Amino acid sequence: MSSTEKKYIYTFKEGKKDMKFILGGKGANLAEMTNLGLAIPQGFTISCQACLDYFDDPEGFIEKIRLDVMEYIKKLENETGKTFGADKNALLVSVRSGSPDSMPGMMDTVLNLGLNDKAVLGLAEETKNERFAYDAYRRFIQMFGDVVMGVELEHFEEILNKYKKAKGEETLDTDLTTEDLKNIIQDYKALYKKHIGEEFPQEPIKQLFLAIRAVFNSWNTKRAVTYRKINKIPNFGTAVNVQSMVFGNKGWDSGTGVAFTRDPSTGEKIKFGEYLSNAQGEDVVAGIRTPKKLDDMKEEFPEIYTELINTMDNLEKHYKDMQDIEFTIENGKLYILQTRNGKRTPQAAIKIAVDRVKEGMITKEEALMAVNPNIVSNLLFKHIDEKKADMSKLITQGINASPGAVTGKVIYDADKTVQLAEKGEDIILVRPQTKPDDIHGLFAAKGVLTQFGGKTSHAAVVARGMGKPAVVGAQALCINLEKKQCDLGSISIQEGEIITIDGATGKVFMGEIPLIDPEIKGEFLELLQMADEIRAMGIRANADTPEDAKKAIEFGAEGIGLCRTEHMFMAQERLPVVQQMIMSETDSERQEALDKILPMQKSDFYEIFKIMKDKPVTIRLLDPPLHEFLPELETVLLEHQELKLKGGSKDEIELKEQVIAKIRSLSEENPMMGLRGCRLGITWPQINEMQVKAIFQAACELKKDGINAIVEVMIPLIGDINELKFIKKDLVKIAAETIERYGVELEYNFGTMIEIPRAALTAGKIAEEAEFFSFGTNDLTQMTFGFSRDDAEGKFIPIYLESGIMKDNPFEILDQEGVGRLMKMAIKEGRGTRPDLKCGICGEHGGEPSSVIFGHDIGLNYVSCSPFRLPIARIAAAQANIINKK
Amino acid sequence: MSSTEKKYIYTFKEGKKDMKFILGGKGANLAEMTNLGLAIPQGFTISCQACLDYFDDPEGFIEKIRLDVMEYIKKLENETGKTFGADKNALLVSVRSGSPDSMPGMMDTVLNLGLNDKAVLGLAEETKNERFAYDAYRRFIQMFGDVVMGVELEHFEEILNKYKKAKGEETLDTDLTTEDLKNIIQDYKALYKKHIGEEFPQEPIKQLFLAIRAVFNSWNTKRAVTYRKINKIPNFGTAVNVQSMVFGNKGWDSGTGVAFTRDPSTGEKIKFGEYLSNAQGEDVVAGIRTPKKLDDMKEEFPEIYTELINTMDNLEKHYKDMQDIEFTIENGKLYILQTRNGKRTPQAAIKIAVDRVKEGMITKEEALMAVNPNIVSNLLFKHIDEKKADMSKLITQGINASPGAVTGKVIYDADKTVQLAEKGEDIILVRPQTKPDDIHGLFAAKGVLTQFGGKTSHAAVVARGMGKPAVVGAQALCINLEKKQCDLGSISIQEGEIITIDGATGKVFMGEIPLIDPEIKGEFLELLQMADEIRAMGIRANADTPEDAKKAIEFGAEGIGLCRTEHMFMAQERLPVVQQMIMSETDSERQEALDKILPMQKSDFYEIFKIMKDKPVTIRLLDPPLHEFLPELETVLLEHQELKLKGGSKDEIELKEQVIAKIRSLSEENPMMGLRGCRLGITWPQINEMQVKAIFQAACELKKDGINAIVEVMIPLIGDINELKFIKKDLVKIAAETIERYGVELEYNFGTMIEIPRAALTAGKIAEEAEFFSFGTNDLTQMTFGFSRDDAEGKFIPIYLESGIMKDNPFEILDQEGVGRLMKMAIKEGRGTRPDLKCGICGEHGGEPSSVIFGHDIGLNYVSCSPFRLPIARIAAAQANIINKK
Repeated sequence: MSSTEKKYIYTFKEGKKDMKFILGGKGANLAEMTNLGLAIPQGFTISCQACLDYFDDPEGFIEKIRLDVMEYIKKLENETGKTFGADKNALLVSVRSGSPDSMPGMMDTVLNLGLNDKAVLGLAEETKNERFAYDAYRRFIQMFGDVVMGVELEHFEEILNKYKKAKGEETLDTDLTTEDLKNIIQDYKALYKKHIGEEFPQEPIKQLFLAIRAVFNSWNTKRAVTYRKINKIPNFGTAVNVQSMVFGNKGWDSGTGVAFTRDPSTGEKIKFGEYLSNAQGEDVVAGIRTPKKLDDMKEEFPEIYTELINTMDNLEKHYKDMQDIEFTIENGKLYILQTRNGKRTPQAAIKIAVDRVKEGMITKEEALMAVNPNIVSNLLFKHIDEKKADMSKLITQGINASPGAVTGKVIYDADKTVQLAEKGEDIILVRPQTKPDDIHGLFAAKGVLTQFGGKTSHAAVVARGMGKPAVVGAQALCINLEKKQCDLGSISIQEGEIITIDGATGKVFMGEIPLIDPEIKGEFLELLQMADEIRAMGIRANADTPEDAKKAIEFGAEGIGLCRTEHMFMAQERLPVVQQMIMSETDSERQEALDKILPMQKSDFYEIFKIMKDKPVTIRLLDPPLHEFLPELETVLLEHQELKLKGGSKDEIELKEQVIAKIRSLSEENPMMGLRGCRLGITWPQINEMQVKAIFQAACELKKDGINAIVEVMIPLIGDINELKFIKKDLVKIAAETIERYGVELEYNFGTMIEIPRAALTAGKIAEEAEFFSFGTNDLTQMTFGFSRDDAEGKFIPIYLESGIMKDNPFEILDQEGVGRLMKMAIKEGRGTRPDLKCGICGEHGGEPSSVIFGHDIGLNYVSCSPFRLPIARIAAAQANIINKK
Repeated sequence: MSSTEKKYIYTFKEGKKDMKFILGGKGANLAEMTNLGLAIPQGFTISCQACLDYFDDPEGFIEKIRLDVMEYIKKLENETGKTFGADKNALLVSVRSGSPDSMPGMMDTVLNLGLNDKAVLGLAEETKNERFAYDAYRRFIQMFGDVVMGVELEHFEEILNKYKKAKGEETLDTDLTTEDLKNIIQDYKALYKKHIGEEFPQEPIKQLFLAIRAVFNSWNTKRAVTYRKINKIPNFGTAVNVQSMVFGNKGWDSGTGVAFTRDPSTGEKIKFGEYLSNAQGEDVVAGIRTPKKLDDMKEEFPEIYTELINTMDNLEKHYKDMQDIEFTIENGKLYILQTRNGKRTPQAAIKIAVDRVKEGMITKEEALMAVNPNIVSNLLFKHIDEKKADMSKLITQGINASPGAVTGKVIYDADKTVQLAEKGEDIILVRPQTKPDDIHGLFAAKGVLTQFGGKTSHAAVVARGMGKPAVVGAQALCINLEKKQCDLGSISIQEGEIITIDGATGKVFMGEIPLIDPEIKGEFLELLQMADEIRAMGIRANADTPEDAKKAIEFGAEGIGLCRTEHMFMAQERLPVVQQMIMSETDSERQEALDKILPMQKSDFYEIFKIMKDKPVTIRLLDPPLHEFLPELETVLLEHQELKLKGGSKDEIELKEQVIAKIRSLSEENPMMGLRGCRLGITWPQINEMQVKAIFQAACELKKDGINAIVEVMIPLIGDINELKFIKKDLVKIAAETIERYGVELEYNFGTMIEIPRAALTAGKIAEEAEFFSFGTNDLTQMTFGFSRDDAEGKFIPIYLESGIMKDNPFEILDQEGVGRLMKMAIKEGRGTRPDLKCGICGEHGGEPSSVIFGHDIGLNYVSCSPFRLPIARIAAAQANIINKK
């Protein structure tokens, strides 16, 4: 009978791999391998629950489990035929932590526990290797003092180095004699007493319990707690593994090593590993000698090599994944000390998953589930090859606003960017921030770098829309536009100098840095094809331009879920006309400007429909507040005052005053909740009318040219069915008239974004008018939380994440509890009214895996995301269907 | 059998008062009175539905009902013993419109229809009064030509005046001879032919159908449609009443008049009315002769007087309300032509309702249901006595931001306002707009008038909070602060001139205008006491200051539902300390400033608790974004540039730059959704800590002084339970420590506002931590609609109301469908977690009747509103309970 009510301790034979949350990852795998019949040095595991209960009452708990631990030590003695604490044939053990999630920062390993002044003699006699025995004892005191008792390692190293130096420079550990080791042990023990205040413990039981407590305590060190917070690991507790020792350093018929069942870097099916003969595990890590390649074992340990290869194959087969294995050879016998799913690069992850399907080892479903969709994004953009990059050239890091890396000349203004780009030069536009006035520069540049602004700043949004690398808010830069120079501490970047930026990491480098090219091919392509076979949900792209649409097709979009029309308004040659439209005082002035914009919009739509032929294209009518197309009030105010103070002409001053008046009349306290979206269309119906004319003329002309366009007109920011009715009435008429005039047949419908909470709350009614719903989860998140993204992400969301108030940024990971609840209500009630209501997401969440899976669960017909996130969405959608079927 | 399938026509005997939607108000009441046995000239009513069906096919419909109409004419002939279209003893009728809701702008009345060249002779013979007969015919042609056929009245009047002038100036209608009338009739007929293109119709049937069509058509005139839209009257259609004529102008034993069963101005139980002998109804209205008082009838028509008084009593009893009656005396016989519930002043409405309870005529419940709570607000503020006011002094009308009227001297700056106010002068602070810097001026002024801003501008919000009259956004004003002068067309208002403003109407007058004083006494007080007896829901006040709290008690509050703490920060002597706190760069600097604010806050709370003793006081922790306490960026930027251009000192310039940097760092794109509410408390916990210390120190000291405070601490803007947990943890500790230190017992709890949609969506969880919910329906409406109130009310809500997209402004009338749905969910799920969860409203809707009734229905424990709306809320809450019990 156990002395406690709960079962806290398990022999390796009692466990299995599913017991990770009880035994920790390491303990569960040791148990699994034991039961697979592999040669595992036996031992037992103290559970994670023990760790948690320990923290309730440390002293009491240790007393409570003391007898249990002794009982399991007894079992281990029986198993091994050795005796813990005996002078001869002593049972020596390792003590290791092991939590359910692999976690650095916790106590790692104490080896050789059980040695003392007497047992070391027994070990020397038994192994006939006195040096080995004293070296083991020396190592144990050092590890125990450092890892368990917190005596800093450097003190031990000082002593070691003193003895090594005494024998001359370049002395290795292995050059130390038994006598040296004996002396070192004396010095170590003195060091221990000085720091701890008592003698180095000779009683193995005392050593063991001190080690167990140290493992428990390591769970709550500051470093471990911080790591868990950052990586969102719950407070599971850590298990303690007590395992009988095997020695890879018992002689040249011994050794130790690490092996991967496939290449973790490329994913190739090549066994990969390193080992050292006559060494303990720590020697491999410490790099004392250069390890040998796994292949070298074929000659040095031919039988063991075969056994190891077989074991690796079996383990991969059994665990259905590439394994990272630790092994030790003791006097010619192979022991496996650990196996776990091996970490790998994204490329390797994909190759391994696909290869294993081809090998018949796993199903397509298993392959898809084995790939974390998020890693895929790294494969879709050029990025800096950090292995080859000279990191001394890194000058600063800003906000990673739009992924992709690029090298180019620094230019500080938009016009010059255009000039040089036309000559074929690669330009990086560098600005304090960008404005609509800079849009031609953004178009022409290969990338953009700004000093100010966040992920939703103009530069960031436009760059993401264009799929162009952007680093924003790099506040360490100090840009002087007059001098055309940027200072950064002692560095000064002149116009024309070469820099490299990586929008996926926010890093900025001087000069040219080697980049890695993205491509969808080989196993990556095959994996995406598997995903397409398996997923049930449609995948569309957010694409505003013909270029975006091409990318969308390339990356597998089945349609466009969001074509924003405002960026079309911002093109260099269009902005003045748009501004003319906004500044209009009369309807006819406004109409005149709109008449100029119509053919431009029409040609945009024509191109997009053409690229997307036979696939649906959802076009959102103009959404942002009009003042976004005008210059900043501050700038104009200061210009105005300067004109007045410096004596500008009356006309100049009056013109500025007109602009100021218009900006003021359009300016809003909270533009996010102001005159935008359908409210614009209700206030100035001509804008929407022009857009719908352009859309349908383009589609009809294309149809006449023999290409089929499928048109979905999306009216944004609806909160009440009456808004939709009011707007739709005239637009539907325009659509029908246009189609009739061209005499073609056209597939089209009118729908709305659901991005205002009230729209979700009254979706049953809205569906009477809307033929589709597209969830604008960015705005819906803003309104549901009452968070202005622009303000929240810079100000309090970081504090919320840091303090644990929020687990995730809701603008990155969809909030299922609040926003998701509204979405569920809207879909259910919308389909109550209109059973075939098509529902999708077109917010940024459409490319985030957990949100895609949620979307599948609540019955979305499709998700739509930026072209570069399409592969992620495709894999996540497949995973959703796999999970759902389970 | 009817010739149509539907029944479109009803005799007066077939109807009753409940059939208003079939017969219109007038028709239903004529039927009701007929069935009460009163002497009603008989007739029939063509239903409202007929009007609607008429518009589907006007020509066809008239043909369809022709035979039915003829059949009812026949019935009327039988009833009256007269014949329609006969030369002798002809049946003459009036034709009147009458819709379910009384509505100006529709066709009113055609009298004497049925007369023609022959019947006029018969009428002359029958009445032995040739002049009467020709006058009747003359009037008929005029009315028919004008009202039915659209010949402008002025043309008829020209002819009439020509004949009158021919007999000399000052000739009255009654001075015209029979010969004159005959000539006039000839001229009228010629006029008719000239305008209409055909002869004046001699066939009574033709006259009748033309009149019926005219009534129908009048339903859809532009004026009627506009009126319906503004007054939210549905498209019911209008009925047509065809009634046999009686004549008040048949001689001196005839007459006509109007009577009220009580005085509609004061509500006193005095029969009130006016009549004219020997006159038709239109003569009373036209004011040709001065009418006599009802009392004069006692002598002139003693028997009829008694009959009329009895009839009036019976009608009031029957209709259970004060009646407005039209009557005619024909040759000594009394006929009642119309009765309806009389329009009355707010004072009269209340007095009548209460009096009738005392008279045992109606129950308290009926009395309460008879009073529209909205009218009560007029009784709570001084207002302009428009009867006595010289309206020529009205100079402009702005936005009615805070009710109450006041006369005072115009002063253009806050400091001078304070100086003069201290000398006892009544000042109206006039500014382009106000800022926190002006707060001392707002405190000192009797009222405020601004050129810019809406109902949520600083001036409006602060004035409402102080219960001080405010007219804002009076854009016609052109204020020149340098000249201390305000121009308005040709008018120029100098500093020190007297003006009067009425914040309930937005009107601004030059000079002093007579005002009416508010008071709660007499029947008003009695009605409110009845409401308190009957209502089930609690009523609290929003009160930020001791002055507010006193008002709250005076107006019947049972507690404070919202005590905002930010206005306490804005007092003149505090603002610099608050700014010091905000500008702090370190925690200790910030703490130093907060330490100065603590005793100020504490003394505020002490006073409020003292006034509210034994009643709960809900204190909301600091809510607005901190930049509201700093000057405007624009101003500081321009000052900075000016200093630079004009060569200011380096120190001055740097100081400005610091302020600019701070404002920029606090400025937000959408401050409504930014760093405010609990987000402030999470970012800078010391502010909340100071506030909670001040609250509990004040309550404990009061308790020591023998007065009981009931404390409710309200944490604003919660969207997730973790926010509440995070903030509450420390504050609960401070509360407990403070109470322990003082050694008192204190009743207190911690709750939250529900004003973020996500809070409502996750209310079940939030109730784990919140001991009460207070719905902040202003913000909840903003977020649920995605409407920034500041922007929406000025920009698109007016368009929405105008175009019928919205029936009501959701910031005035709670949106039950969207916002209300969230509230219902939150209450249900909150109480699922915590069954005794106290729920209230503290948004402005808490004083709006339909919202109060909704609040009762969804189970709120209380509503809270500004002190001046408490009586409205009390009555509405009583009505809610009455409706609910039905």
